[in-house]
Amino acid sequence: MSYCFLNGKILPVSEAKVGIFDIGILRGFGIYEAMTTFNNKIFMFEDHVRRFRKSAEFLHVTVPNTDKEIEKVIYELLEKNQLQDKRANIKLILTGGEAVDGINFDPTTPTFYIFVEECRVLGPGYYENGANLLVHEYLRQYPEYKTTNYITAVSLQKDRKVAGAIEILYTCQGAVLECSTSNFFIVKDGKLITAKDNILRGVTRNVTIDLARKFGFEVEERAVSVVEMYEADECFLTSSFKDIVPIVKVDNRSIGNGEVGKITKRLIGIFTDFASTY
Amino acid sequence: MSYCFLNGKILPVSEAKVGIFDIGILRGFGIYEAMTTFNNKIFMFEDHVRRFRKSAEFLHVTVPNTDKEIEKVIYELLEKNQLQDKRANIKLILTGGEAVDGINFDPTTPTFYIFVEECRVLGPGYYENGANLLVHEYLRQYPEYKTTNYITAVSLQKDRKVAGAIEILYTCQGAVLECSTSNFFIVKDGKLITAKDNILRGVTRNVTIDLARKFGFEVEERAVSVVEMYEADECFLTSSFKDIVPIVKVDNRSIGNGEVGKITKRLIGIFTDFASTY
Repeated sequence: MSYCFLNGKILPVSEAKVGIFDIGILRGFGIYEAMTTFNNKIFMFEDHVRRFRKSAEFLHVTVPNTDKEIEKVIYELLEKNQLQDKRANIKLILTGGEAVDGINFDPTTPTFYIFVEECRVLGPGYYENGANLLVHEYLRQYPEYKTTNYITAVSLQKDRKVAGAIEILYTCQGAVLECSTSNFFIVKDGKLITAKDNILRGVTRNVTIDLARKFGFEVEERAVSVVEMYEADECFLTSSFKDIVPIVKVDNRSIGNGEVGKITKRLIGIFTDFASTY
Repeated sequence: MSYCFLNGKILPVSEAKVGIFDIGILRGFGIYEAMTTFNNKIFMFEDHVRRFRKSAEFLHVTVPNTDKEIEKVIYELLEKNQLQDKRANIKLILTGGEAVDGINFDPTTPTFYIFVEECRVLGPGYYENGANLLVHEYLRQYPEYKTTNYITAVSLQKDRKVAGAIEILYTCQGAVLECSTSNFFIVKDGKLITAKDNILRGVTRNVTIDLARKFGFEVEERAVSVVEMYEADECFLTSSFKDIVPIVKVDNRSIGNGEVGKITKRLIGIFTDFASTY
């Protein structure tokens, strides 16, 4: 039996339900957070929970638990779901709770739940041979906050699969932004470049930047053009559930020599070392 | 006790729950429809259900019931909730059902529910004295479909109340579009003008246009500028739950002479006659 946390209680997933008047479903009014574990430790918990609170503040919804309580609940869930010795993914959802008059909410009575799942690790082929991205012109509405508005991402999953792509890359007016649930980097002349604005700054993105700088790489956070991307030496994406994934094609057009880049390989090694001793 | 319809069954609202993995809550992936009754008849049912199906097709989610079944369920709900002799509001929600791998869905196993409520009619003051609107620069992402993405509308409710406004008027790059859950018209030199594109074409909007033309008014559906709005003789909004509401101020700036316009009054009369004999 699987267990989750809902509004203060740990209970079987099969009993965890949300009322039909929840503003998270009626009006899509909610936020989301995704974390992972390494060695049975929540990876970068403080960074994730800080971002979660930032998103909650943006919607003016109260997070009903302290950081310590959230952390404790997650460890309890990992244990109850026998995920201590496996890599696990953790998801947090917070909505405005029951809708008032159809479109209002009481910020003090949110719906808050947490669930954990075994991490579906990508096949090693992706890390060894690299992956393809599908390009879509789209600027998320509130990109710096992790709201539950993923209508575009969900709608494009079919096209993504048909294209044999691992992710959808959002571009806007000639600029490369982010993927639907990941961040995106290019490498040019030994330098890492990644978008700074109009994106969700992912925790794995930030860790990758910090590690890269620590190991002597130059990193620029700035607008990246579509032209620069196609002329890059290497590309990769970062995500809490996928770590660092080499990208060798975008819309089936090869990047660099079409093989996994040396710097990307080096960064995967650095990240793996960091995560494995976390 | 209140009753609703959920996935094929009529059941008490207190027992109507949605699973925590529903993609409608996890990813905001759902659509919405709102109808009202006059004289215990669903107003313009065919138009509403057609739009509902259009929105469902956009998301590639199957509507699990026929139009006839939906109509029958609504009348059963009106009876079971003792709303036959009252004006009632009806809401339909359709989501992609349980999420698969976190971001996919099975189009054939949606979550579909319907609930009814007594219509909270606006005080007569609004119809006699007119109302104020709060302006917000915003273009909805898929304006022609009624998705459940109302993050902006929900977030602005506090500001709307502080401003003493009845609704939020969305403008985009100098154009007047629509209100958060209504359509918007201006009247100039006896002519009705309302936005045609980048809006949800409301059923009450369409009825108003048809009735106005039938009664000899000229109606233009085209882009409306913010300047035109402030120079209009009259303004009003249309909505399934509010009918036609005179707007005498926008961002607290008077429209025309700041009183309810003659043509607006006439249209309210025409609409009321039409609805009362529906």
